[in-house]
Amino acid sequence: MNATTPPTPHTVGILAGMGPAAGVDFARLFVAACEDWLRGHGQAVCDQAYPAHWMAQLPIADRTRALTDGAAPQPLDAMAQGLAQLAGLGARAVAMPCNTAHAWHAALQQRVPQVELLHMPRETAAALRARSLTRVALLATEGSYRIGLYEQAFAAEGIGCVLPDAQARHWLMQGIYDGVKAGDLVLAQQRFVAVGEQLRAEHGDIALAMACTEIPLALPQARAAQGWTLIDPADILARALARRAYGA
Amino acid sequence: MNATTPPTPHTVGILAGMGPAAGVDFARLFVAACEDWLRGHGQAVCDQAYPAHWMAQLPIADRTRALTDGAAPQPLDAMAQGLAQLAGLGARAVAMPCNTAHAWHAALQQRVPQVELLHMPRETAAALRARSLTRVALLATEGSYRIGLYEQAFAAEGIGCVLPDAQARHWLMQGIYDGVKAGDLVLAQQRFVAVGEQLRAEHGDIALAMACTEIPLALPQARAAQGWTLIDPADILARALARRAYGA
Repeated sequence: MNATTPPTPHTVGILAGMGPAAGVDFARLFVAACEDWLRGHGQAVCDQAYPAHWMAQLPIADRTRALTDGAAPQPLDAMAQGLAQLAGLGARAVAMPCNTAHAWHAALQQRVPQVELLHMPRETAAALRARSLTRVALLATEGSYRIGLYEQAFAAEGIGCVLPDAQARHWLMQGIYDGVKAGDLVLAQQRFVAVGEQLRAEHGDIALAMACTEIPLALPQARAAQGWTLIDPADILARALARRAYGA
Repeated sequence: MNATTPPTPHTVGILAGMGPAAGVDFARLFVAACEDWLRGHGQAVCDQAYPAHWMAQLPIADRTRALTDGAAPQPLDAMAQGLAQLAGLGARAVAMPCNTAHAWHAALQQRVPQVELLHMPRETAAALRARSLTRVALLATEGSYRIGLYEQAFAAEGIGCVLPDAQARHWLMQGIYDGVKAGDLVLAQQRFVAVGEQLRAEHGDIALAMACTEIPLALPQARAAQGWTLIDPADILARALARRAYGA
């Protein structure tokens, strides 16, 4: 290796399948983040300049159901197995493109300590703080709301959270489950837009954090949402993973 | 398991990174193919209905360079290692979303016989024959042309191949390497459209086989290409992989 040869990037992993379309979209965001990293560091963009990355798309039990119904199948064992396999493939850091799954972040990191599992809500909170945002509306699953996943991460950075009311939360769950996860993007878009319009009617042009990876698959494409301030934690997480891969 | 519980699909793999954006797009096509399979078989579409699938995006040496310059780095060892790792993760079948890489298909299958490595040109030829197409124009890399990769697979199914001239082949390589692989989609689109226009001026509304996975990332989106008959071997391969996953 000499001064003109960039160092080989680290191998990283993506623990996904929650849902599969969101996993694919995260891989797209990660590849785009790597391309941006290469350009920003004056390096040539070609196939061989990207970090080796492995994506596991696994049929993992539903996270919100597990958090709201103790008798439901639990996702931890399957997630831990996938994470250990990614570590075995040489991943230095792993991103998990499912917000709700971060309810098990500490348990996963404890079971597989040899790899860094990025924390999506904390990465998002840090990125919003860097943008000097002090108040955002949180669009998430019932499971995430139940455990205060984002509220805690945002509070730690001094960012206030506006939460949708019960009706709007119901629309979000419909848009996520009957919409994106079931392949009905028209329904998803209608429900997500309704929630955004309600929040904006009450709070003005507030930033909307799309804190479930299914939401950015439908909301940003809606005509009604053009001009809204949308925050995509998946994009923030993808950029954080690219930084880990390139060693920064 | 009872009559109402569908059997668990098989684990499958994707050997990719050639280039990374094409790998992501293949994963998208695979997830869409699985969704279509579920709908076509009357099964519910939800996260847990998809097959476990692993995607390896690896920094593999350039395939066309290896085929046209014996002194260049060779991709076989890295591809074989990735394929063996996918087999070790339980993959029953693996798809490789890089057409040119199929120059090493037989060598890879010999080195890793415990997994079925799908053959993209043969799957494409079979699908075109099922559509009763008897003549297509081939848009590919210099490496693929050099070894007659698609010409052989098409001939075996009685499908004739129209090849672009030297100038058009040069445009294709520019669109693939200086365009898509380098992140310049405007250049890529311009070059691919120029090739398509030349072929259509000479052969009428001939089907254009986009037999390099970078081409469908730019050509179908071009305004000039609307209404053209475009064949996407990556989509055909994704559907074949979904059939293997669901056991058909």
